[in-house]
Amino acid sequence: MLTRVKSAVANFMGGVVAGGANGDCSGSDLPLKFPYMRPEFLGLTPDEIECSADHIARPILILKETKRLPWATGYAEVINAGKSALNEDQACCEVVVVRKRPGDSTTPSKTPTAKRRSSLPNEEGLGLKENSADSEGLVFHYWALFDGHAGSGAAVVASKLLQHHIVEQLQSVLEVLKNHAVLPPTIFGEKSNHQMTPGIHRATLTRAASLRGATGAPSSPCTPPPQRLFTEKKIQHDSLVMGAMENAFKEMDAQIEKEKQMYNITGGCTALCVVYLLGMLYVGNAGDSRAIIIRDGKVIPMSTEFTPESERQRLQFLGFMQPHLLGGEFTHLEFPRRVQRKEVGKRMLYRDFTMNGWWYRI
Amino acid sequence: MLTRVKSAVANFMGGVVAGGANGDCSGSDLPLKFPYMRPEFLGLTPDEIECSADHIARPILILKETKRLPWATGYAEVINAGKSALNEDQACCEVVVVRKRPGDSTTPSKTPTAKRRSSLPNEEGLGLKENSADSEGLVFHYWALFDGHAGSGAAVVASKLLQHHIVEQLQSVLEVLKNHAVLPPTIFGEKSNHQMTPGIHRATLTRAASLRGATGAPSSPCTPPPQRLFTEKKIQHDSLVMGAMENAFKEMDAQIEKEKQMYNITGGCTALCVVYLLGMLYVGNAGDSRAIIIRDGKVIPMSTEFTPESERQRLQFLGFMQPHLLGGEFTHLEFPRRVQRKEVGKRMLYRDFTMNGWWYRI
Repeated sequence: MLTRVKSAVANFMGGVVAGGANGDCSGSDLPLKFPYMRPEFLGLTPDEIECSADHIARPILILKETKRLPWATGYAEVINAGKSALNEDQACCEVVVVRKRPGDSTTPSKTPTAKRRSSLPNEEGLGLKENSADSEGLVFHYWALFDGHAGSGAAVVASKLLQHHIVEQLQSVLEVLKNHAVLPPTIFGEKSNHQMTPGIHRATLTRAASLRGATGAPSSPCTPPPQRLFTEKKIQHDSLVMGAMENAFKEMDAQIEKEKQMYNITGGCTALCVVYLLGMLYVGNAGDSRAIIIRDGKVIPMSTEFTPESERQRLQFLGFMQPHLLGGEFTHLEFPRRVQRKEVGKRMLYRDFTMNGWWYRI
Repeated sequence: MLTRVKSAVANFMGGVVAGGANGDCSGSDLPLKFPYMRPEFLGLTPDEIECSADHIARPILILKETKRLPWATGYAEVINAGKSALNEDQACCEVVVVRKRPGDSTTPSKTPTAKRRSSLPNEEGLGLKENSADSEGLVFHYWALFDGHAGSGAAVVASKLLQHHIVEQLQSVLEVLKNHAVLPPTIFGEKSNHQMTPGIHRATLTRAASLRGATGAPSSPCTPPPQRLFTEKKIQHDSLVMGAMENAFKEMDAQIEKEKQMYNITGGCTALCVVYLLGMLYVGNAGDSRAIIIRDGKVIPMSTEFTPESERQRLQFLGFMQPHLLGGEFTHLEFPRRVQRKEVGKRMLYRDFTMNGWWYRI
C-alpha cells in the first residue's frame, strides 16, 4: 500500500508518466488478467482507445450512432487530465440470462458450473420482454460503473466479472425466485408456509388491534378472522435478490484479492451496479459514485455515496475496536487538523465515533 | 435482568400488582434517589398523583388552566392500562440559566461546582428574551421526555438531573459560546484563527475552482482572491452545543449506573430532549420516542427513533465483535424466527450485519 502511495505521489510530482499496457507503473512481472480497455458497449477500435487517452485533446466519448443502451441510458466519459496515463474508470451494460445449472435439482450442487449467456444490449436485447422468464431461466438488465483508483486493474476485472458473480448467486435461488405464488421458504427446499399476498408483509398488527382481539370485542360479519401474531418474519423475493447482489460484491472482492497473487491487477475501484429483474430495480453501491434517474428533467438519486463524512463513525469505531487497521496513521478520534507534537496535552477540539458534535478533550 | 423479566412476566400474568412507592417490586432495601412523581409542570397534588394511576378510569392528564409551557408546547398523558402499577414515563420542561462557575477563568477547574438557577416556565419564564445572554450567563429552554421501562426509577432520576448535566457541560465552554465574533478555537483558551463568517463553513472549494486557481487563470477585478485550501476544519458554535448534549447523555447514564449501587433506581429509560439556545433548536435522542413540531396542522418530525430495524446492523456488528454482550441469547446473525434444534445444519434464511437482503446459509 505504501509503495502505491509513493508511486502515486511520484507520478503526481513528475507529471503524467507513460504507463504499461494497463497504465500503471507497478513493474509487475505477473500477466494481466484482462487487457486494458474502454467500456465494451462503446465499440471502440484499438486506435480510438489510444486516442481516448489523449490528455491534450481530451475527447468526450459517447455512444456511436448505431449503438443504444436500454432505457435510454446516457453515457459520456472524458479522461481526467494529468491524473493517470489511462482512464481508470470502467463501465458495463448487458442483458444477462440466468439459466438453471445442468443437473440442478432443488438443492444446488456445491460445485456449481455456471452456464451463462450474455449479450450486448442491442435491438435484440431490447426486444426481450421485461420481466421475461422462460421455462428455463430469468433475464435481467445490468448496468455497472467502476471508478478505478491507483491503477485500472481492479476496475477492469470487476467490469468483466461482477455480473457473473450475480448470476452464480441467483442460480442457486432460481426456483425460489420463479415461484411467484409463495414466499421464499425459511428452510431451503422445504415447503413455504406463506402464500404471496402482496402488501400484507408491510401491515403490522397494531397494539390497538391486538387489544381488541384480546378483549373479545364482538366482530361484525365483515371483520376478518383475528390475525395470529406471527413471530416469523416473512422474507420477500426482493430480499433474496438483494442478498444475491450483496454476496456477489463480497465474492468479487475476494476474487480480486486472491488473484492479485497470480495476475497483475493494480489498484482498487468503487462498484455501482443496477439490476432490473422481475419488475424491480435494484441498486448496489460501494463507493462515492451515484446512480440517478432523470425524469421530466428532474434528477432522482437512486443511491447514496460513501464519503469520509458518511463513513466517519463506522471507520472510527473500527479504529477503536481494531486500531491496527488504521496503520498507525490515525486514532479513533477526529481532530480538526493534524495535531502537532507541542500541542499534545492541551485541550483540543475532537470528536469520537459516538459523537456528531465536537468537544474539548481534557 | 432476568429477575426483572421474570417479575414483569409474573405481573403481566397475575394482573396489575400494587407496587412500592416507586411502583416496582424490586424488593430493594436501598433508599430512593427521588420520590416517584408526575411531571412537575403538571402541578399535581399528592391525591391527583394517586388518581393518575387509576387503571380503570385512566384519566387523561393535561396542563391546568393556570399553567402554560413555552412555545405552546402540548402535553397529555394517560396510564398504560395493566402494564405497570404506576406510569413509568417522565417529562420535564424548564427555562435554565447557565452561569459562570465562581472563580472560573479561561481554564475551568477540574472540580466544577455547578451553580444553576432554574425555574418552571411561567409568565416570568416566557418573558425572558429569546437568545438572551446577560453579562454573566446564557439562558436556554429545555424540554425532555423519558420513557421508563421495567421500573420508573431511571426515568425519575433522568427527568430531575439531565438538565444539570447539560448545564455543567455548557459551563466549561461558556466564554467560547458567548464570543460570537470568532469560531471556537481548536486549542481551548488560545486565540481562534477563524472569524465567524456565516455560511462559509458550508462552502467547499470545488475541484473546478481549485484547478482554475492552479492553472493561473486571469482573474477579473471582481474575482475574490484565490482561497487557500484549508486543511483545518472550522468547527461552529452549534457543534459545541451538540457535543455538550452528547456528553451530558453519557454522564447521566454513568451516574445512574453508579448510583444504582447506593440507591433503589429501578429499570431504564429512553431520553429525548430539546434545547433552544442562542437561536438554535437542538434535539438529542436515545430511544424510540420522537420529537415533533406541529405547524399549520402538519407534523414535522424533529428526531428519528431507535428501532430494532434501525439499530440492527450496529447491534449485530457488536455481537460479532463482542459476542458476550448478547448474553448467549443471540448470535450476530439474524434468522426469520428462532432456529429449532432439528433445523441445525439445514440451509436457512439469514442475514448478517453487512446485509440488507437475505440469503440461505450454506
